[in-house]
Amino acid sequence: MSLKYGGDYNPEQWPEEVWVEDVRLMHEAGVNFVTVGVFSWALLEPSEGQFEFGWLDRALDLLHENGISVDLGTGTASPPPWLSSNYPEILPMDRAGTTLWPGARQHYCPSSPIYRERASILAGKVAERYANHPAVIMWHINNEYGCHVHECFCDESAVAFRTWLREKYGSIDAVNDAWTTNFWSQRYTSFEQILPPRVTPVFENPSQRLDFKRFSSAELFACFMAEKVAVRRFSEDLPVTTNFIGVFRHVDYWKWVSELDVISDDSYPDPLDPDAAMGAAMSRDLMRSLGGGKPWLLMEQATGYVNWRHVNGTKPGTMMQALSMQAVARGADGINFFQWRQSRGGAEKFHSGMIPHSGTRSRIWQNVVQLGADLTKLDLLEGWSVNAEVAFVLDWESWWASEGDGHQIQLNFHDNLLEWYRPFYEANIAVDFVSPGADLSGYKLVVAAHLYLYTDATAALLGAYVKAGGTLLATYFTGHVDGNDQARLDGYLGTLQDVLGLSIDDFSALAATGTRSSIAVTSERWGILECSEWSEYLRLRGANVHARFSGTDLDGMPAITSHAHGRGTAWYIATRPNRAGIARVVVEIASSAGVVPVVSGLPLGVEAVNRGAALFLINQSDRDVEIPLDGFDVLSNQQRFRPTLGAYASLVLANATEGDRRLAASLAEVAAR
Amino acid sequence: MSLKYGGDYNPEQWPEEVWVEDVRLMHEAGVNFVTVGVFSWALLEPSEGQFEFGWLDRALDLLHENGISVDLGTGTASPPPWLSSNYPEILPMDRAGTTLWPGARQHYCPSSPIYRERASILAGKVAERYANHPAVIMWHINNEYGCHVHECFCDESAVAFRTWLREKYGSIDAVNDAWTTNFWSQRYTSFEQILPPRVTPVFENPSQRLDFKRFSSAELFACFMAEKVAVRRFSEDLPVTTNFIGVFRHVDYWKWVSELDVISDDSYPDPLDPDAAMGAAMSRDLMRSLGGGKPWLLMEQATGYVNWRHVNGTKPGTMMQALSMQAVARGADGINFFQWRQSRGGAEKFHSGMIPHSGTRSRIWQNVVQLGADLTKLDLLEGWSVNAEVAFVLDWESWWASEGDGHQIQLNFHDNLLEWYRPFYEANIAVDFVSPGADLSGYKLVVAAHLYLYTDATAALLGAYVKAGGTLLATYFTGHVDGNDQARLDGYLGTLQDVLGLSIDDFSALAATGTRSSIAVTSERWGILECSEWSEYLRLRGANVHARFSGTDLDGMPAITSHAHGRGTAWYIATRPNRAGIARVVVEIASSAGVVPVVSGLPLGVEAVNRGAALFLINQSDRDVEIPLDGFDVLSNQQRFRPTLGAYASLVLANATEGDRRLAASLAEVAAR
Amino acid sequence: MSLKYGGDYNPEQWPEEVWVEDVRLMHEAGVNFVTVGVFSWALLEPSEGQFEFGWLDRALDLLHENGISVDLGTGTASPPPWLSSNYPEILPMDRAGTTLWPGARQHYCPSSPIYRERASILAGKVAERYANHPAVIMWHINNEYGCHVHECFCDESAVAFRTWLREKYGSIDAVNDAWTTNFWSQRYTSFEQILPPRVTPVFENPSQRLDFKRFSSAELFACFMAEKVAVRRFSEDLPVTTNFIGVFRHVDYWKWVSELDVISDDSYPDPLDPDAAMGAAMSRDLMRSLGGGKPWLLMEQATGYVNWRHVNGTKPGTMMQALSMQAVARGADGINFFQWRQSRGGAEKFHSGMIPHSGTRSRIWQNVVQLGADLTKLDLLEGWSVNAEVAFVLDWESWWASEGDGHQIQLNFHDNLLEWYRPFYEANIAVDFVSPGADLSGYKLVVAAHLYLYTDATAALLGAYVKAGGTLLATYFTGHVDGNDQARLDGYLGTLQDVLGLSIDDFSALAATGTRSSIAVTSERWGILECSEWSEYLRLRGANVHARFSGTDLDGMPAITSHAHGRGTAWYIATRPNRAGIARVVVEIASSAGVVPVVSGLPLGVEAVNRGAALFLINQSDRDVEIPLDGFDVLSNQQRFRPTLGAYASLVLANATEGDRRLAASLAEVAAR
Repeated sequence: MSLKYGGDYNPEQWPEEVWVEDVRLMHEAGVNFVTVGVFSWALLEPSEGQFEFGWLDRALDLLHENGISVDLGTGTASPPPWLSSNYPEILPMDRAGTTLWPGARQHYCPSSPIYRERASILAGKVAERYANHPAVIMWHINNEYGCHVHECFCDESAVAFRTWLREKYGSIDAVNDAWTTNFWSQRYTSFEQILPPRVTPVFENPSQRLDFKRFSSAELFACFMAEKVAVRRFSEDLPVTTNFIGVFRHVDYWKWVSELDVISDDSYPDPLDPDAAMGAAMSRDLMRSLGGGKPWLLMEQATGYVNWRHVNGTKPGTMMQALSMQAVARGADGINFFQWRQSRGGAEKFHSGMIPHSGTRSRIWQNVVQLGADLTKLDLLEGWSVNAEVAFVLDWESWWASEGDGHQIQLNFHDNLLEWYRPFYEANIAVDFVSPGADLSGYKLVVAAHLYLYTDATAALLGAYVKAGGTLLATYFTGHVDGNDQARLDGYLGTLQDVLGLSIDDFSALAATGTRSSIAVTSERWGILECSEWSEYLRLRGANVHARFSGTDLDGMPAITSHAHGRGTAWYIATRPNRAGIARVVVEIASSAGVVPVVSGLPLGVEAVNRGAALFLINQSDRDVEIPLDGFDVLSNQQRFRPTLGAYASLVLANATEGDRRLAASLAEVAAR
Repeated sequence: MSLKYGGDYNPEQWPEEVWVEDVRLMHEAGVNFVTVGVFSWALLEPSEGQFEFGWLDRALDLLHENGISVDLGTGTASPPPWLSSNYPEILPMDRAGTTLWPGARQHYCPSSPIYRERASILAGKVAERYANHPAVIMWHINNEYGCHVHECFCDESAVAFRTWLREKYGSIDAVNDAWTTNFWSQRYTSFEQILPPRVTPVFENPSQRLDFKRFSSAELFACFMAEKVAVRRFSEDLPVTTNFIGVFRHVDYWKWVSELDVISDDSYPDPLDPDAAMGAAMSRDLMRSLGGGKPWLLMEQATGYVNWRHVNGTKPGTMMQALSMQAVARGADGINFFQWRQSRGGAEKFHSGMIPHSGTRSRIWQNVVQLGADLTKLDLLEGWSVNAEVAFVLDWESWWASEGDGHQIQLNFHDNLLEWYRPFYEANIAVDFVSPGADLSGYKLVVAAHLYLYTDATAALLGAYVKAGGTLLATYFTGHVDGNDQARLDGYLGTLQDVLGLSIDDFSALAATGTRSSIAVTSERWGILECSEWSEYLRLRGANVHARFSGTDLDGMPAITSHAHGRGTAWYIATRPNRAGIARVVVEIASSAGVVPVVSGLPLGVEAVNRGAALFLINQSDRDVEIPLDGFDVLSNQQRFRPTLGAYASLVLANATEGDRRLAASLAEVAAR
Repeated sequence: MSLKYGGDYNPEQWPEEVWVEDVRLMHEAGVNFVTVGVFSWALLEPSEGQFEFGWLDRALDLLHENGISVDLGTGTASPPPWLSSNYPEILPMDRAGTTLWPGARQHYCPSSPIYRERASILAGKVAERYANHPAVIMWHINNEYGCHVHECFCDESAVAFRTWLREKYGSIDAVNDAWTTNFWSQRYTSFEQILPPRVTPVFENPSQRLDFKRFSSAELFACFMAEKVAVRRFSEDLPVTTNFIGVFRHVDYWKWVSELDVISDDSYPDPLDPDAAMGAAMSRDLMRSLGGGKPWLLMEQATGYVNWRHVNGTKPGTMMQALSMQAVARGADGINFFQWRQSRGGAEKFHSGMIPHSGTRSRIWQNVVQLGADLTKLDLLEGWSVNAEVAFVLDWESWWASEGDGHQIQLNFHDNLLEWYRPFYEANIAVDFVSPGADLSGYKLVVAAHLYLYTDATAALLGAYVKAGGTLLATYFTGHVDGNDQARLDGYLGTLQDVLGLSIDDFSALAATGTRSSIAVTSERWGILECSEWSEYLRLRGANVHARFSGTDLDGMPAITSHAHGRGTAWYIATRPNRAGIARVVVEIASSAGVVPVVSGLPLGVEAVNRGAALFLINQSDRDVEIPLDGFDVLSNQQRFRPTLGAYASLVLANATEGDRRLAASLAEVAAR
């Protein structure tokens, strides 16, 4: 089998005579896989219950004749005009009561019975017609669930929310207890009184908000399942996917993955962001982790610019290839783009494509052709996996609860998470993400960054992991509440107090700007660390102090601690050091846990990842760098000695640290094909 | 009698077994006074017309048995779910037509007849049941009127607004005249055509807006009165209060105070704001002034952090005690907190309490216990008052009018007011606030800062005050309009032209940023003052010029003037000097008026206030300071000689400047108890 | 004939006894022309169908008796309360569904049949009554069309939009093709499914948006035409105007001008903006160009401050006169203000007037009187025109399309346009604006700045202009799409590829801030240019390269090119140099095209414009400057030798470069009157 290479192919945007040119160029670029029909509802079902498949038959036949496999969309991502015109009640409503109208896409309430019914009918019709079409090898359900409409506050959503609550809680008193409704006179006497958390005079009930996030994520999952069930009625075996969108706040992907045969991701790092490659790496690590380490697909990326940021730069030089290599290195078995041919019109006509507006004479097309050729040299990698010694606990429920109103800070969980991920990325230490209930035994270090909410069960798992010899690193904003977003009394943290050897007496945000925005932390090991955002009044219960606050009423109080618990160690960091400080502290903690980088001593900006026995070295910078290694490079099909790597260029070496000569030989064999 | 000490006590948030622990700890902390039932509607009336008082009976009995007095809430601050579910028309609407939904609190239209009726019924039921309960010593009506919903634009509010206008104006033509409706073709021919000032294509009618502010404040007062009347049917004697919220823009407290037996205030200075203590001082001076100098209650403050700012710092060290001492020094006879026990859940679970999440081993609890002990040493102060020689005119109607659309600047009246208050605060000169119609004869200096709107009667009062020997200081943005927000023609200022000895030909805002944002003012007395925000083209009519603009077309024109009028003097400042400049100018003007600081020569950050014969010295800084005074300190119960005062520490001295030894003796006696 | 001088006169705001004073002061100031009745609907038609003209009769008679001519408003700009009360469906709705309520002005849906009917009835009634009134010399229809409500999204607008689309496209499939509805499943099967572009989950369809902008501008024009037709039924000869508002985004004035007898403009440059005079100059050049070079009227300006910015400075010194002289120099035959007497109340009481609140003793009034006197010295200029050798193509449709969502940058077309206009303004080179289909043969240089959208016909015209010997300067963001906002494939630019000698392979925005926000461009002619916002990957097809990008992957690629095409030359600039860079490049290109400044060697801040044989020299700075010219100055009625010109002062010289002594003599004759 080959790595999959291609993109979204939307033949309905072009006259059929262009299709012939399309398949010719697909061959030229090495494309072997395209996704078809994602936004075809209006053409497949031009009026309610009337289906027209002729054009799609012709497109799929043409692709099949040319040896190109198809990931076939169910076509349900954007309701056609007739649907919202016939049934305006499907339109979503925001928390202020504003209807979101047609004219873009995803204008449906996830709880709308009519939307779900019509989407399932279409998905079933598509599956029925094409289950046995020889081009079709995968089903692609809907598109980027929740990317625009992740919550709906309409009356139909209210009904569905009540149903969800009834199922979760059983009785209205259980809701009242979980939501602390005795505060502010909110006690309900009937489920019928409950509403979605629409706009209120002031802060909403945080537990209600948390349950509404859970509900909203679950409703999107229910939309997915309704379509999947419809597809499975006609196709029992073909793998099913839906395209995720990275480390996305609004959908709890852990709850989805058991129903997906293939994990796939859409990834659009901002070329103008100096941290673009790091953010992309985090997404790729999450995708690999969602599938438990199994290969995944990069389902969408851009060849150059996108159209939807305020300012959109194109990917300079060969940045596109570098990010693609990163995905393969981190476990992807396919690289795909949105979309094959850049649209002439519509909202995304300035979203780049594999064939840009300027056609095949362009730099973009040359990059596409080169990447296609490079990927064919990596076919043997397919299925090989990445091993990580470090795991980050990622819990969407905690994320949601931590970013609500009424906290000491307006935590940006995603950006903070990235700051704790950064030292691992920069030191080329592989990282997995794990769900709060996951088995941790395989990891040398587990990071619980800002894990504001956890259940007693999660705390017990983390404690058992340490007791058995693991190293835990917890940061501030961890363990404040239980699963109902109710405070853990008497020192926060719950049973992790014993594990960390401390309690929290009080905490205080630091100001966003000005003289009260930073605090010094001093340490014999790390010198003076400049810290911001947060500070805490810790009460030691056995922990060792590695660094202390300096100045203000916190002067001399502990800031960074470790505690021996069982056979393991638990670290705690009670404030936010700046980047250099985080790097110093975290790398030492990782090292003390026995965590080893893939390669040490690489120039800044070079990413090193082992996938199986292959060592990827990717220059994510715009400068030439020298690589202090020798090895056989599969991409250039030659032995390289301390090579210079140009801007955004990559090497794929037989693993220099293991020196597996058999691998080098087999890779060379592939590369020579 | 003792100073009152305690906080909001919400037993319904906790199991009854916790109540026993509560009263035990109240004793430990010296608590003698709690506020109960403010948010208890949903529990007191679980469905319409069905009342349940059992739990409250038990709580009040327990408090009484333990000698703790109760300020009993009417419970009406947050409607229960059944009320808005049964009567959705009570929900407020913002100016864009967005409904404000349940899920937080205060989700009622102040003009809603149903809300008022149901609230009054509950208030009456509570009063009927507990008027003779021995624990209850005060009624606490509703809570922080208007803190979130100070205006409502719904159709019921429209009806009420028309009724209010009919009563105020009598005829539609009188409305037309007052509102200048011949501008922009707005002439009404019927009251039925009038609407609240909902969102419009561009600037609304400012006189309509001003009347709507008056109306909205009056509607909140009517809500208060409806409850008070209901309470008075069953309780003729117990004092009534409702908790104000400082220098609050949206409610004209002058119109309320005659109906309040006790003035009480909720005060939440931001610990991360370097001006927190100054802002708090201004609120306390206002509270004392609202009651005409009589003692007031600090009804709510936080022990540490609150939850509702974007960034919330805790109060470091003993800042909480320093701010409490400030309140006592400025006239408070009680110090209370929201709330006794920090909530486990709900929107404000991260609002600190007297018993924090970390319990009684915490720094917070130690502070609470210490403050309780300190307050018992100050019992004799109860009823003693503060004398001020300076008065600031504070007029809500002018405030509202000055901040509307269509001005040369977007005046932030509150922040500007604070800048004029600052030199008095920093120089330890006591300040009162007075309403526009108040008797001014007792003051040496009256400040009319940005008094944009005044009636002829107010102008006459100010003129008479000067004529009789007083000193008036008026600043730019004063006297532009009359009570209908209609321009005073021919030089603005009305009869104050004669008093100030000048007219205003023209004015011009300075730019917010850039080269046109500042202008120099030069003066022999004060050197060069860097000024911003505003400049004026004054025409002298007898005033002396103390400082002149320098540069631009204003070069050489007067900027700061004084004018002898009768036996007094009237000063005018036509621009905004920077802080150092304001301090130089204002302190000299005060001095020329014979105003004397409480104490001179104190280190920066030390607040000095005389309450009766006691001199409070409060270190509002986070540094140690040396006090250049000797005296007997009631708090430490000893004679102090040029003592060092730690961060946020206080002294209460027998008035060192008066040397009243009898006082020192009697205070020592109290302190020794 | 005389230059017109006066302003909006709203007698209904004042008692009739003031009117007598008004006409006396008008004489004093030289006022000969006033605009009456613009906002008088509520008084002219106090209830539906009942008209009252008595007060207007008296006002017009009084004006006529005093020799003052009247531009009579149709009174329809602000619907009276009874209209929206009787017919709430006339109220406009924004894209989020929020109703815009009465209380300000312009609260009508432009597509409302009822509004149009009632406005036309009133316009007809006014015309019928006053067509033969001797004071009335011009009709003033409505006011500043679209200034607040330029689009409406209500259901009536939806109906009108469908009608407009039916007329434009004929069939729904033609709409689908033009809007690329096969993207995102938007294909319509009936016109009834089409809605205005209300708020959507994400980016709307850009072609739908563009058509909605065209429609909205056309609906405003239809409102104008409905009133004009009503007026013409009673008045066949009197000239008709409506007041434009400068370089205004939302209305395509090119489509209006054939129906206007007089072009008139409202102009409110911000006195606090250092670029105020330049922006005003651009508006004046547009107004002259809209009328094909014929004289126009400055219908409104402020004597001092306005009230509607966040910060409003007054016009210092004689800035008002300098801006007035600028208007005359650039083709105005009249200078008028909003408004004669500053209002006492209402939303604009702090909008300055000819008689300010401080009355006739003020600086403002002195300026008004002085300007009146100056204008009488310039009567002979009336009808003389300005000749420009440079034309800017201004296309509203391109403007709209370029600023929609989904682009690489959030282009601010207006501000960018100003940056390309700046070098011409600062070098005192006269500029015209032309519509995309205009005859260009008279110009030496044509600038197509950011002309993102053009039709093939426009491209052909530009090409023919160059071929015939013209010089074209095109900038980045030009030629990306056709008239449907669909991309021009294979290199963008369409047939301008041949003219410019290049294609565009790719482009990339630069970041808004940070290290990726600028790029260097190097050139032998201009040195190093620091550039921002945009960069392009050009493919040369014959063009010469004058400057190249330096650094990044663009290193060495062309940035500024020229190409000989036929007898002419076409320049292209692929990035945005900073101001100094633009000046260097553009002035050299203009010079190479044979363009000559009016006067060279003037101090910075002095504007020089030839109107006919008169040379205006206007000091738009706040400093004294020396003018290196001699000549007879009409304003001071004397020969001046290298005169010093004070801040905001002007000279009107007999054209010193031509030395026309007859002109000097005739001007002297006029000035001596």
